[in-house]
Amino acid sequence: MGPVPAVAAIRLAVRTALADHEPGDLVLVACSGGADSLALACAAAFVAPRLGLRCGGVSVDHGLQDGSPERAHEVVELLRRRGLDPVESVAVTVGRAGGPEAAARAARYEALDHFAERYGARSVLLGHTRDDQAETVLLGLARGSGARSLAGMPAVFGPEDRYRRPLLGLPRSATAAACEAEGVEPWQDPHNADPAYTRSRVRHQLIPELAAVLGPGMPEALARTARMLREDTEALDEWAGREYAACQHAEGGLDARRLAELPTAVRRRVIRLAALRSGAPAGTLAASHIEAVDALVTGWRGQGPLQLPGAVEVRRTNGRLAFGETAPTAHSDGARGQQLTGAASK
Amino acid sequence: MGPVPAVAAIRLAVRTALADHEPGDLVLVACSGGADSLALACAAAFVAPRLGLRCGGVSVDHGLQDGSPERAHEVVELLRRRGLDPVESVAVTVGRAGGPEAAARAARYEALDHFAERYGARSVLLGHTRDDQAETVLLGLARGSGARSLAGMPAVFGPEDRYRRPLLGLPRSATAAACEAEGVEPWQDPHNADPAYTRSRVRHQLIPELAAVLGPGMPEALARTARMLREDTEALDEWAGREYAACQHAEGGLDARRLAELPTAVRRRVIRLAALRSGAPAGTLAASHIEAVDALVTGWRGQGPLQLPGAVEVRRTNGRLAFGETAPTAHSDGARGQQLTGAASK
Repeated sequence: MGPVPAVAAIRLAVRTALADHEPGDLVLVACSGGADSLALACAAAFVAPRLGLRCGGVSVDHGLQDGSPERAHEVVELLRRRGLDPVESVAVTVGRAGGPEAAARAARYEALDHFAERYGARSVLLGHTRDDQAETVLLGLARGSGARSLAGMPAVFGPEDRYRRPLLGLPRSATAAACEAEGVEPWQDPHNADPAYTRSRVRHQLIPELAAVLGPGMPEALARTARMLREDTEALDEWAGREYAACQHAEGGLDARRLAELPTAVRRRVIRLAALRSGAPAGTLAASHIEAVDALVTGWRGQGPLQLPGAVEVRRTNGRLAFGETAPTAHSDGARGQQLTGAASK
Repeated sequence: MGPVPAVAAIRLAVRTALADHEPGDLVLVACSGGADSLALACAAAFVAPRLGLRCGGVSVDHGLQDGSPERAHEVVELLRRRGLDPVESVAVTVGRAGGPEAAARAARYEALDHFAERYGARSVLLGHTRDDQAETVLLGLARGSGARSLAGMPAVFGPEDRYRRPLLGLPRSATAAACEAEGVEPWQDPHNADPAYTRSRVRHQLIPELAAVLGPGMPEALARTARMLREDTEALDEWAGREYAACQHAEGGLDARRLAELPTAVRRRVIRLAALRSGAPAGTLAASHIEAVDALVTGWRGQGPLQLPGAVEVRRTNGRLAFGETAPTAHSDGARGQQLTGAASK
């Protein structure tokens, strides 16, 4: 008799995610002890040796909850019993930059990167499911910044495609069923049920309401939408990258006349690229900033310079858009710029 | 004293939407008698003469509710009192094709087209607001067909940009306030409050829930997302149109090897274009169909022909994708195709 369907589906997903690995490669599973990453670890422990791969695990202790070191230790023990090697728990210090969720994520990936590099791992598997993806899309919808924020989590990312999410196509119900079939007891993160967290409210209030109003296929539809928008974004970013190179003005900056001939979606991506390369931080650069710069191209009537986040100043001069540092005296010598810093997109 | 802010905002939006009109042009307002189109008609009646334009109105009677002829007549009387000329009510017969909402829409636009052409109108204004747009985006989210279904309603569409939606950037609350300020009593469509209609549930259940979980700016964020995705779609459709021409194979169909070099988002749009031009109906051509055809390009292992909706058959032969009519005997002579007709996208 074969494995139960959920276990088989997860093993197949892991096998597919590891198709480009070579015998002897090390694959690591990032495991919180929750059902998703536990089911993933069990599947990887089964699949990896059959592909001639080594499989290890890492449990990141964010130190944000009582008992988190003990739990990380339990996860390590469990993974070792399943045959993973090396297995370690890594304690991280979560800062405050960008809010609690972003800070925890930054600390987590830094630890995972360190661990992967120390052991020369080919890949690190993450346990996000289709339901996580649906939640991410809805959170992106609230930002209202178009395809980039709706495209959800990529299946593969990081240096040399290090990070992989084999379970993005599978529902959360599959990982719960797999844990039961594998006889492992997943940890229930109290944050996941705490309505103080937006993601928890999205999970427990919004997704059920969406399914009730729009149909039970919503998580799948959201995940499919995310995948298609990611493909759109990749194609448009490729186009914008070519145009960014082609629009370079001989005297620096972007050729405004050439920019003006591009479709809106491409033109604004080229402008965004120029702003990022000039030092504007991606996290604070909103659609409203890009639209304001775009008005220097498509609605030119002799406007003054614009101020973007990160002390980046954009001005149009002699048919080119010049991106530079905000001059410290710009506001004291009468040449007042249009202040955009802090103009959020909503 | 100037007009109240809502009236001023709607007049400005109408003025902007008519900026390309020339003196003497006729603009028509499609008016159901609801708050949105009534506020739009009042604004157009004010703005049009000041731009040297003529302004008429039309009320479409779908004949789907008791008393709809009387209501259409009342709307006509009201618009005439506001100075619109010509004004008529047009009774239409709603068929069944594509479901009740699609059938009503088809009948409505046919009547509006006729009316516009009879009077030589330059444009027809429609009263959809930002809240309608947000609802449309959510309904598109349920379809899960990517940017095309999330891009919502265009601000301008139809032959020679006939149809315009000046109010897409304004909230529904503005049209209610404007009607009150203008002293006109809007009709409350009972369908809008009837939970039997998905759109009504989206409006009264889902949007408030989204705002409660994700923040009160949701309708605005959804409308902004729609606009950005529409720009993305326009740029990608442009790219795909170029590649469609460039991928034509000397022996007919598409050059599979050239297709394979394109980004996924562009390649699949080229395939969709070829399927549409071969007669596959847009309404039934799902993302799953396009992905199946795409597998003939990127996952070629000698598969048989595929059947698309509209009796379109696609086969790969000698490095090209040939789109043709399904042979009537294809299933009786042993050359069984992969049946895809009816494979919905969810």
